[in-house]
Amino acid sequence: MRAYAYSEKIGLDTLRVEERPDPTPGPRDVVLRMRALTLNYRDLAIARGHYHAAVEPPLIPISDGAGEVIAVGPEVTRVCLGNLACPVYLPDWVDGPPTPEKLVRRLGGPTDGVMAEFVCLDERALLRAPSHLDAAEAACLPVAAVTAWHSLFEFGALRPGETIVILGTGGVSTAAFLFAKATGARCIGVTRREAVAERLCSLGADEVIVDSSNGWPKRVMELTKGVGANVILDVVGANSLEQSIAATCHGGLVHLVGYAAGERASFDIFEAIRHAVTIKIATAGSRRSFESLNRALEQERLRPPIERVFPVSHFRDAFAHLERGGHFGKVALSF
Amino acid sequence: MRAYAYSEKIGLDTLRVEERPDPTPGPRDVVLRMRALTLNYRDLAIARGHYHAAVEPPLIPISDGAGEVIAVGPEVTRVCLGNLACPVYLPDWVDGPPTPEKLVRRLGGPTDGVMAEFVCLDERALLRAPSHLDAAEAACLPVAAVTAWHSLFEFGALRPGETIVILGTGGVSTAAFLFAKATGARCIGVTRREAVAERLCSLGADEVIVDSSNGWPKRVMELTKGVGANVILDVVGANSLEQSIAATCHGGLVHLVGYAAGERASFDIFEAIRHAVTIKIATAGSRRSFESLNRALEQERLRPPIERVFPVSHFRDAFAHLERGGHFGKVALSF
Amino acid sequence: MRAYAYSEKIGLDTLRVEERPDPTPGPRDVVLRMRALTLNYRDLAIARGHYHAAVEPPLIPISDGAGEVIAVGPEVTRVCLGNLACPVYLPDWVDGPPTPEKLVRRLGGPTDGVMAEFVCLDERALLRAPSHLDAAEAACLPVAAVTAWHSLFEFGALRPGETIVILGTGGVSTAAFLFAKATGARCIGVTRREAVAERLCSLGADEVIVDSSNGWPKRVMELTKGVGANVILDVVGANSLEQSIAATCHGGLVHLVGYAAGERASFDIFEAIRHAVTIKIATAGSRRSFESLNRALEQERLRPPIERVFPVSHFRDAFAHLERGGHFGKVALSF
Amino acid sequence: MRAYAYSEKIGLDTLRVEERPDPTPGPRDVVLRMRALTLNYRDLAIARGHYHAAVEPPLIPISDGAGEVIAVGPEVTRVCLGNLACPVYLPDWVDGPPTPEKLVRRLGGPTDGVMAEFVCLDERALLRAPSHLDAAEAACLPVAAVTAWHSLFEFGALRPGETIVILGTGGVSTAAFLFAKATGARCIGVTRREAVAERLCSLGADEVIVDSSNGWPKRVMELTKGVGANVILDVVGANSLEQSIAATCHGGLVHLVGYAAGERASFDIFEAIRHAVTIKIATAGSRRSFESLNRALEQERLRPPIERVFPVSHFRDAFAHLERGGHFGKVALSF
Repeated sequence: MRAYAYSEKIGLDTLRVEERPDPTPGPRDVVLRMRALTLNYRDLAIARGHYHAAVEPPLIPISDGAGEVIAVGPEVTRVCLGNLACPVYLPDWVDGPPTPEKLVRRLGGPTDGVMAEFVCLDERALLRAPSHLDAAEAACLPVAAVTAWHSLFEFGALRPGETIVILGTGGVSTAAFLFAKATGARCIGVTRREAVAERLCSLGADEVIVDSSNGWPKRVMELTKGVGANVILDVVGANSLEQSIAATCHGGLVHLVGYAAGERASFDIFEAIRHAVTIKIATAGSRRSFESLNRALEQERLRPPIERVFPVSHFRDAFAHLERGGHFGKVALSF
Repeated sequence: MRAYAYSEKIGLDTLRVEERPDPTPGPRDVVLRMRALTLNYRDLAIARGHYHAAVEPPLIPISDGAGEVIAVGPEVTRVCLGNLACPVYLPDWVDGPPTPEKLVRRLGGPTDGVMAEFVCLDERALLRAPSHLDAAEAACLPVAAVTAWHSLFEFGALRPGETIVILGTGGVSTAAFLFAKATGARCIGVTRREAVAERLCSLGADEVIVDSSNGWPKRVMELTKGVGANVILDVVGANSLEQSIAATCHGGLVHLVGYAAGERASFDIFEAIRHAVTIKIATAGSRRSFESLNRALEQERLRPPIERVFPVSHFRDAFAHLERGGHFGKVALSF
Repeated sequence: MRAYAYSEKIGLDTLRVEERPDPTPGPRDVVLRMRALTLNYRDLAIARGHYHAAVEPPLIPISDGAGEVIAVGPEVTRVCLGNLACPVYLPDWVDGPPTPEKLVRRLGGPTDGVMAEFVCLDERALLRAPSHLDAAEAACLPVAAVTAWHSLFEFGALRPGETIVILGTGGVSTAAFLFAKATGARCIGVTRREAVAERLCSLGADEVIVDSSNGWPKRVMELTKGVGANVILDVVGANSLEQSIAATCHGGLVHLVGYAAGERASFDIFEAIRHAVTIKIATAGSRRSFESLNRALEQERLRPPIERVFPVSHFRDAFAHLERGGHFGKVALSF
Repeated sequence: MRAYAYSEKIGLDTLRVEERPDPTPGPRDVVLRMRALTLNYRDLAIARGHYHAAVEPPLIPISDGAGEVIAVGPEVTRVCLGNLACPVYLPDWVDGPPTPEKLVRRLGGPTDGVMAEFVCLDERALLRAPSHLDAAEAACLPVAAVTAWHSLFEFGALRPGETIVILGTGGVSTAAFLFAKATGARCIGVTRREAVAERLCSLGADEVIVDSSNGWPKRVMELTKGVGANVILDVVGANSLEQSIAATCHGGLVHLVGYAAGERASFDIFEAIRHAVTIKIATAGSRRSFESLNRALEQERLRPPIERVFPVSHFRDAFAHLERGGHFGKVALSF
């Protein structure tokens, strides 16, 4: 089979197609013929050497994907030939809170990822995709949608009538819109780009704040009659945390999901006290979260948005597209 | 003013109109001109002497009502003249879990209720009604809707894609449908009457099981592919608990809200172990729950259904209508 | 190796020693030479055909045990030769809430148990025993102590100054005493036997109620100045639930752990409403609970009490001893 | 009566004794003759004009105190003449999570505090002190001990065997030691002063790290075999947050309680992701927390430590003592 891999050194320049032996499934293994992948900032951070943990070559990159079941071991019961299935990004995090032991294996680094013609996994390390999704949509789920779900539902839960502010329009943010809207919460989007406001509304945003300065918390306060938002999903990182705190209601919660804008966060403690805020650092999520979100997507017929699909061989263009930012939903690769 | 009261003995036969002095509001008090009341089984149980706690005459009955603010003390800031407002059923339960101290004062018994021309209360003991509701709709909220909300959201929370089964079609059940549907849960209604199935669907039921025997848990299992429901709202009491346990998923939750069918509950421990069930006895809810549900109703423009409105002077007909059972939503009285 | 097994029919009469091939560990497997076992009612219920789930022969019985690591596969990292280790009763319940899938494999039925000279398991299906425990003490942990811990700490948690009532003196109850006392809670024991009162105090009971009728809830109310207990651990089942509800504080919690006294529970709904009680059916616990309790036992140097140790060949005497009831701590078997 | 007050301007220089009319209790009011006060950084921050919220003269300062009940209104039922009682710092925060409305009234600013001969309050705005405490010890509770309790027990809870790191030796920190030790957790203290290590041990510290640089997280990791602490109570603020994050276990919790070292906190997002940390900003606590901690103190006979007692007229010396830092327990004033 063909696989894309970093052989000796990690970097986009060194990512090349290699010929590898076709996988032979063990008794509980499943072989997927990969149909689509999607990119995360994580993939870019690893490729650029900016990731927060050590990742060594040789490595098959990319965490998020979906493929068709083309072979199963004799003891496999969870999927059938022909099913569309997604590898689980953190195969050892089945349930409960995160522990270091559950997070050792991570697809796309340090563990081999899904940028290959075939991927062979224990059946417990993959899940059937919701039946109404195509391969690129399903490939949005393992990292981005699971991160959004885990943040919104495994650490408290949104109630109808509560307000959530979601920053950005990438994969985690757009998945969060889908889920938050399904809970009956009021969803406020914040983006720098006028052009995507309408698309956010079509995802379920009740209001969209177009803001390229730091004035959005003031607007959130106006929209909530001075109360503030119950939950903020902050994918920006760095100084964005200060704004997010300013936009929360008393006793509110900020999910800090990423570090797109910088690795260092800072905030005013007095302001944080005034908001009695809790700051939760997100770390993807468990297989149980993945199962739960699949059920919700399937029941509500929700579809994660795709920014654009590139052929897998054009992966450098896809990474460049991701790096420029400003996408709406996920950047996908198709086989 | 005129007030309906039990003077010397409690019983529907002894409930009479009396002339009482008009209330004079203290500094933080609010006077409501009552516009509508709604009945709960509790009112009937008190009238019939079947209530689970001592209630003594003299007593103005009825817990659930809504009225117009017609006078306010000089320190009142929470409502204005002309607002439609609802007295809080348990005025000392502001927030947090229930305690005996928070539950001493209960409107409609042992504390005087709302079946009077005017009701005078501290401003903290009432809440503005959602602006889109009429008086009869608002009068559904203080006991019935608060009980439903408190059960669904203060003790865990429904997540999108989860399944809830709601028994019955009275005030708590219909409010629970509104809230559960708003969370993105799958809502299954169970009723004995074919006639109401369609109305349940219009409230948000995804499926309605019409069943006058005890076969509904089997149907819940079929509808959930053998998994069972995450949450059951059981307003029936008595042996219904056994069915409710049988219909839960592993680790599921049964809210036991009432005792319409009998005071004694029993169940098979083995079956309960098989379902790893938790049984939660409901006890109305806090003012904070009331505030939260108002916000949700207002945002989602939800309206609690009214079975029928009687003039207040026809209260005996209204109680008889309640007692016959089979209503859809609440039985109301209007001034 | 020698193993005790039900070959064709389950029943104490048919439990016999058999010769089986010695196990050969796979890459992540560990072979334990069993040193001690302890009995649970569950073992008795299976042997008597009263268990709440189907269990078929052939079967090696007994869930609770501890053994010495005598061989490890080449990939094993969690234990070393010579360690004392305990098989995990529910090897697929690693963390999070219970699900049917996590509960399929259960040592001692339907999955083969630990009544054998050697037991071979994946290293993830066993845990090192706390270093200060001997083999019989360690053999108390997998079912009984994990059940107690899971009930007390995975569903809420006791706080210093709260009151817990623990019924009985068997393995779950005595483990619960150890844990509850460690939390700074006030522990009240209830037993029918004067003789064990002092031993309960030595385990940490602040008060012991000796009661062979149903009067103990009244005494709990006296001891708590009319408030009642925050938590009741009820291992009795059947009508005991009614007493347990009567002894809770408002908003209290009853853990229903067993069914020693009968399979059918019943209670008065009015009384349950008065106590705003939650009833939680216990179902053992996860490996994470086991890890947590090991850490607590080790830090506080706590030791689960042993009623009596029988040689494994005298297992019928041990079962008879368990069946008579009245034991304090666990009935053990030693190899 | 005599009262200390800021009349026209807030500042230690302007704090003077004034003669005020003796209070006359209303129907549910209680008059306390104040016996002891204790200081918080908050009192100093208000006096210095550094507090995070607007506080205007005229103002009687100081939040923490205890006094003897010397008069009660005719409807008072919660306390008796002669009882030692503590005013509740946030009289409107009875229970549940904080809301702006619950936090408006704060004794010692903006609401009049307890630095007066007599204090008159609604009986719901004070609590009986635990019976084994003297007045200065009881005066440690309303702000400092309630803050510690609320952080440790209202947002999750410590379990036996878990590890908590407590920074500092002031009123919140020493109260936290008492409570944490009562839960069976392993308590690690961090202080800059060798001299207090032994006193921390006598409060229940299992280990004390004496560190005047930022090396303590490394030592916490050693003491926990590389796992880290489950909970950190950080009273230092500013850059201490970075160390606190570094000392948590995966999925751990940092309670940020104060801002002694500076108002601006910052941290590395990558490091925070590595620890999957949650940061919770503390904000004192509810009356319910106060009731709970009183019960725990009374049951376990715990006593909050007092650094030193000054006569109330020497309040400037007491404030200077607080400002120098390095105290162990609270700085008190006695009448």
